[in-house]
Amino acid sequence: MEAGSPPPPEGEGERATFRYALTIEYDGSPFVGWQRQENGVSVQQRLEEAVSALEAGARRVVHGAGRTDAGVHALGQVGHVDLSREWREDRLRDALNAHLRPSPIAVLETRRVAQTFEARFSAIRRHYRYVIDNRRAPLTLQRGRAWHVKRPIDAEAMHAAAQALVGRHDFTTFRSTECQANSPVRTLERLDVRRDGDIIEIVTCARSFLHNQVRSLAGSLEHVGSGKWSADDLRAALEARDRTRCGQVAPPHGLYLVAVDY
Amino acid sequence: MEAGSPPPPEGEGERATFRYALTIEYDGSPFVGWQRQENGVSVQQRLEEAVSALEAGARRVVHGAGRTDAGVHALGQVGHVDLSREWREDRLRDALNAHLRPSPIAVLETRRVAQTFEARFSAIRRHYRYVIDNRRAPLTLQRGRAWHVKRPIDAEAMHAAAQALVGRHDFTTFRSTECQANSPVRTLERLDVRRDGDIIEIVTCARSFLHNQVRSLAGSLEHVGSGKWSADDLRAALEARDRTRCGQVAPPHGLYLVAVDY
Repeated sequence: MEAGSPPPPEGEGERATFRYALTIEYDGSPFVGWQRQENGVSVQQRLEEAVSALEAGARRVVHGAGRTDAGVHALGQVGHVDLSREWREDRLRDALNAHLRPSPIAVLETRRVAQTFEARFSAIRRHYRYVIDNRRAPLTLQRGRAWHVKRPIDAEAMHAAAQALVGRHDFTTFRSTECQANSPVRTLERLDVRRDGDIIEIVTCARSFLHNQVRSLAGSLEHVGSGKWSADDLRAALEARDRTRCGQVAPPHGLYLVAVDY
Repeated sequence: MEAGSPPPPEGEGERATFRYALTIEYDGSPFVGWQRQENGVSVQQRLEEAVSALEAGARRVVHGAGRTDAGVHALGQVGHVDLSREWREDRLRDALNAHLRPSPIAVLETRRVAQTFEARFSAIRRHYRYVIDNRRAPLTLQRGRAWHVKRPIDAEAMHAAAQALVGRHDFTTFRSTECQANSPVRTLERLDVRRDGDIIEIVTCARSFLHNQVRSLAGSLEHVGSGKWSADDLRAALEARDRTRCGQVAPPHGLYLVAVDY
């Protein structure tokens, strides 16, 4: 979820000179997250296996715009990959999807891009949505797709308080201690909270986000919604630049990477 | 999904004189349907087990407003049940939900009702929604929650053609051969088709529906949307009053029982 370090070296990339951008949707539930890891199946791994099947077994790295955590969903993750031959865009999409079965990952669109296009570094804006289902009864169809908050929370109060976080700030309070970004300063372009029935959506976008930033913001906004925190408490937490002042980190399954702009 | 025959006799009902209406939501995926069956776990069975746990093990029948098929979801199914003691409505809801875990069934609301209230026979209107995800790429988050139709279909043409089905008609063409209703005549109050991005929703309501009626209508409307059928073909299918003229029966997992009016 952050920008800062260069991508890993391409495997067998010397002959792969046709770059494609992929728009990717996934249900994050069964994965250890976007990034390849030792401890389970990642979205990146499944995509790279699908690409490899089209590339006579050669490994191709699929670079993602955002490193979503385990359980986080995507409606419009973007990746790029270099292939050794040219494809019709719709054929490539269909071929990748055929090889992705039965994983809940879908390539929505493929687009031939210039060799200078980098899914992560060319991005100018990321859009995230955090979904809370605010009701007493357990979740059924929304299970694993929203954060279940049982006590009534006030979305209008959350929205009003959130406006103090919009703009350029040091978000040390709201980033994971494991965040590897060089700077804790980010510029939130928007942070809107709106209710529709039991569903509360937190909608935010920025050029880039820190690790766990959206979930840390969502968790702290929930404190405002429940009345545990005032708007001033939220602002004070931001200004403290102290990770221990973060209210709570909201669970991953309420978070969606909605879109990436270039 | 139909009205016609009286409910089964109440088990040990003589001492159970406090009637409650339950508003119920469920993910139909893991169930054999609403109704108790020999071949698997039904929603009704799980609800009755939860009620039984509150009633010292006595069996209580939970009568539903609509007998949803295997895989069909509900956002607002209604049932009624007789209990041997009075409950605070919110306590009863919470107690039932505690006993329903971990099944994806939730009691959203309980309401004390008169002994004359019958979830099925007192209902004056049922609301259903049928969801189609109309895109080329496989489904991920919508898997098991929408019918995946890959070829582009025309929702406006579907809506226009559907209007010929609104009103009082003999729906023999659009009911299961196993439908047990005495009459194939039903009155559709509305049958609207609307698109929002890739999602096409078919929204319908009527006093009652025949078995498989909504799925038969959805399947036939898809033929109109794809151009396989004209609006006249749909009307001719209705007028034929012949089950073999039904276009196709859409899969259960796109169907939602949204609400029941009393």
